[in-house]
Amino acid sequence: MDLELLREATRNQMPDKRWQHTLGVVRTAIELAERFDGDVRKAELAALLHDYSKSWQTSRMEQIIREQRLPQELLDYDKELWHAHVGAWAVQTEHGIADEEVLDAIRYHTSGREQMTHLDKIVCLADYMEPGRDFPSVDRIRQLAESSLEQALIAGFDSTILLLLDRGRRIFPLTVSARNGLIQQLEAIQLQESKANGG
Amino acid sequence: MDLELLREATRNQMPDKRWQHTLGVVRTAIELAERFDGDVRKAELAALLHDYSKSWQTSRMEQIIREQRLPQELLDYDKELWHAHVGAWAVQTEHGIADEEVLDAIRYHTSGREQMTHLDKIVCLADYMEPGRDFPSVDRIRQLAESSLEQALIAGFDSTILLLLDRGRRIFPLTVSARNGLIQQLEAIQLQESKANGG
Repeated sequence: MDLELLREATRNQMPDKRWQHTLGVVRTAIELAERFDGDVRKAELAALLHDYSKSWQTSRMEQIIREQRLPQELLDYDKELWHAHVGAWAVQTEHGIADEEVLDAIRYHTSGREQMTHLDKIVCLADYMEPGRDFPSVDRIRQLAESSLEQALIAGFDSTILLLLDRGRRIFPLTVSARNGLIQQLEAIQLQESKANGG
Repeated sequence: MDLELLREATRNQMPDKRWQHTLGVVRTAIELAERFDGDVRKAELAALLHDYSKSWQTSRMEQIIREQRLPQELLDYDKELWHAHVGAWAVQTEHGIADEEVLDAIRYHTSGREQMTHLDKIVCLADYMEPGRDFPSVDRIRQLAESSLEQALIAGFDSTILLLLDRGRRIFPLTVSARNGLIQQLEAIQLQESKANGG
């Protein structure tokens, strides 16, 4: 796999603004992987490819979801969620990306999922907080990301859920499961630490 | 079934403050059933019994959930959710309440569920907005309830989800499904109306 060719192919799928965002996510994912002992090479690859299909026509994505038997429930929710599954399918089909961990990180970078892997978390969080992002709680997310991948990502999901509440839109159940799963993980870590401290 | 006996039995399960709340829910459920063409008698009965087990000991509720094979996933979520299922079981067992519509309205009055019945909605909304309730968005919920059961209930679920986000607590997935289901119902109604108007 030639990373330079992949870079060019990815750049060709999107307008320059999205490409700049992609470069921001790549840089941030590498930083997070270094900070939290993740796989830097996989983080870079998944981040590069995470929005591969984001700028594709809706009709093209819909056709792929139907014909390639991607999860059909996607069609009932925001189109925002479609590109993640379509993108994973596309980079597998067009570029032979076969690493399931990388494909999953692409697939779940927008919604999250119940039991997120370390790589899922890194890519999803990098997408929330790359330097080009600007929304009310992004500084808090960046601050939490100094010390906890999970706490920062919970704050990221909180911002998504708040936005959907505010707009009267449906909430993708997987995002709630993802947030619940992270809270449960944090509680387990705290319990372990308290036991280790003789508590 | 003697409603007076049921009233006394219910009153005996709880402190006076909760009994006053119950009477408020009964009055509000009757009003909502009248306003939105619901079954007034069933609304009154389900509202009277909705908090039957609310003041029971946690350990007693936990034992019933385990031994009576109520949904075990309840045990993973807030204890707030337990009394609804335990209460439906209790009034069935202790008082022979057999109407599944009434039992479901008791069972799902706190969490909601994906496809809420008209009675589910009336009891759940009455519980949010009875005269004794006082929280930031309750006036907006009461105002919406003048004209739409669904919009008022969405605002009720919004207030619950906001509170859980704010406190960093897990969100019960059924509540999100309930809210999503109501939004979908409203969208379907709007589409029908727009078609009826030649839109």
